[in-house]
Amino acid sequence: MREFIPPAARFVELPAPFRMKRGGDLRGARTAYETFGRLNTARDNAVLVLTGLSPDAHAASHAEDPTVGWWEAMLGPGKPIDTDLWHVICVNSLGSCKGSTGPASINPATGEPYRLTFPELSIEDIADAAALTVRALGIDRLACVIGTSMGGMSALALLARHPELTRTHISLSGAVHSLPFAIAVRSLQREAIRSDPQWHQGRYTDDRYPRRGMMTARKLGMMTYRSAEEWDSRFGRARLDTGLRSHDEPFGLEFEVEGYLDFHAHRFVRRFDPNSYLYLSHSMDQFDLGESCGSTADAALSRLRVEQALVMGARTDTLFPIRQQDEIAQGLSSGGADVEFVPVESPAGHDAFLVDVDRFGPPVAKFLASVA
Amino acid sequence: MREFIPPAARFVELPAPFRMKRGGDLRGARTAYETFGRLNTARDNAVLVLTGLSPDAHAASHAEDPTVGWWEAMLGPGKPIDTDLWHVICVNSLGSCKGSTGPASINPATGEPYRLTFPELSIEDIADAAALTVRALGIDRLACVIGTSMGGMSALALLARHPELTRTHISLSGAVHSLPFAIAVRSLQREAIRSDPQWHQGRYTDDRYPRRGMMTARKLGMMTYRSAEEWDSRFGRARLDTGLRSHDEPFGLEFEVEGYLDFHAHRFVRRFDPNSYLYLSHSMDQFDLGESCGSTADAALSRLRVEQALVMGARTDTLFPIRQQDEIAQGLSSGGADVEFVPVESPAGHDAFLVDVDRFGPPVAKFLASVA
Repeated sequence: MREFIPPAARFVELPAPFRMKRGGDLRGARTAYETFGRLNTARDNAVLVLTGLSPDAHAASHAEDPTVGWWEAMLGPGKPIDTDLWHVICVNSLGSCKGSTGPASINPATGEPYRLTFPELSIEDIADAAALTVRALGIDRLACVIGTSMGGMSALALLARHPELTRTHISLSGAVHSLPFAIAVRSLQREAIRSDPQWHQGRYTDDRYPRRGMMTARKLGMMTYRSAEEWDSRFGRARLDTGLRSHDEPFGLEFEVEGYLDFHAHRFVRRFDPNSYLYLSHSMDQFDLGESCGSTADAALSRLRVEQALVMGARTDTLFPIRQQDEIAQGLSSGGADVEFVPVESPAGHDAFLVDVDRFGPPVAKFLASVA
Repeated sequence: MREFIPPAARFVELPAPFRMKRGGDLRGARTAYETFGRLNTARDNAVLVLTGLSPDAHAASHAEDPTVGWWEAMLGPGKPIDTDLWHVICVNSLGSCKGSTGPASINPATGEPYRLTFPELSIEDIADAAALTVRALGIDRLACVIGTSMGGMSALALLARHPELTRTHISLSGAVHSLPFAIAVRSLQREAIRSDPQWHQGRYTDDRYPRRGMMTARKLGMMTYRSAEEWDSRFGRARLDTGLRSHDEPFGLEFEVEGYLDFHAHRFVRRFDPNSYLYLSHSMDQFDLGESCGSTADAALSRLRVEQALVMGARTDTLFPIRQQDEIAQGLSSGGADVEFVPVESPAGHDAFLVDVDRFGPPVAKFLASVA
């Protein structure tokens, strides 16, 4: 049972009680965040970044933490999200295990980790916690909210629930809700964790940890983050070096693609709290912008008030298919926003916004220049 | 440890020793088969069907077994594979648990099931066993070999190793080898079974059976057999009826798509031997027509001698993508065969050849009419 808090993270205490959308309150809850670039005196150059399921608030290196961040290539001085111009705030999602309060945090009422006593988490709660964080930093109006993947959902929830908080929006590989294929993937990921006997209804320890379930969940994730086409050119049918194969095990690893999945799963397995994973994953399946606003997704989108928006996604994304980004673009546009929709020809699938900076960077830079 | 033999299955004893391609011999091995329609006196109207990983030899109902077969809509009197005209032989794959010798069969040398002592299985072994079966039935030359999915691989291996055995070929959703995405899916399926403590290195019993691993493997399979688009229209975000949800379990089933996967997994889990699954699945990853022929896949295809071929696949197939069927068509064509390539606009993904008879039936019927 561990949290994984970046060394330079700062915190905002959320006013108690923090009421969760689907019931339950949090007391003594907090969010972790990091900032990049300076807030100007007019306090109007702030940009909020809302993340996918697993990243922390350390989006890029900075003076207090020079280690490489998860969006290093996109964010920094002179980069597409230019911190010479913008004051960027990256908030770790509520429910995560990377500094913001979640199932791995201590419940002040009991002195024990919440584990499964943490109330049901929704994307709307993540959005509310981020909005409170921004306001606690003395910012009444953001220049832009940028949301990627799950963060694209959180951003839409934020726009709906905090309509005056931002002037513009960038949605990268986001969606108004999850489609059945994505639900099935996440359901299987959760099942892999839940069915690992070491999960033990959420009462695992560092010594008895659901490693196998987390490995499988991560491998399943990796299979949907990129594209089959990318794998064809990257791995083909290449075999692992003999030394890396599992000779002692029948049906063990043999192909490079198997080694790649195994490597990433090993890296992930001790860096994310399994219960937090379950909560965040489940919140993505549950989120439905239309349902959240008591209408259809299209109607909900058309009621969001932003001046300008940039909506991007990759045509090879199987998890949040490109038609979902098109849906966001059309919906925001019908509400009167000036919307640019950029479908990207990238082999990098859902992860394209992370790794294909050549294709995602220029439209983001251009959009932000037009907002300045 | 069980085999699942259709009641009307017949058997051919394979001459001993049956030498396996990757080492090891079988003694006392057999194949299970069923036939549909009559062999004519010229013995030249025989059609061989080679199946995907899980089906048995009972492709369709007939007088001796009136239960519905796995390809009922395609095969029978007046159907696209018209048994009023053709004598169809469906052979259960060697290594399966449905009548042909496999890991669940008794090893006559020990009186115990083979389990993991079964020698490594290859697609070429499946092809050889099928060819021996055909010859044992007194047929020297087939009118056509039809292979679907894994059976498409077995058919190509048969064409390469038994060049005079067939005049023509129909390849439905087949491939010359597995691409990395398919390898990753199957690797994860095998890992789910292997990591189930009840698998017990293949020494499970009916009472201690790797149910959980088999369920996960099947769910993963189901996720790749159809298409995301089909699921969008079929399930959308519909919830399961309250009675079907798992209320007692945290993060249990809630969406219809989750219930669908669970239903199919439950159905499958006791109907297939886990060790046989591992062997067959592994043989698909290993198969590489080019490697098998000591050349590239294209060169190997161009050396196959068939007069005519029909190659079909679905554009939504993510497991055996349509470019793999195109590759087969082009390769056979460059070898001089008269090839028709029919890419199908079906939402049914890899399973289209099973379920989209409206689209697969007519080209198959037309092709067979041209062969007659």
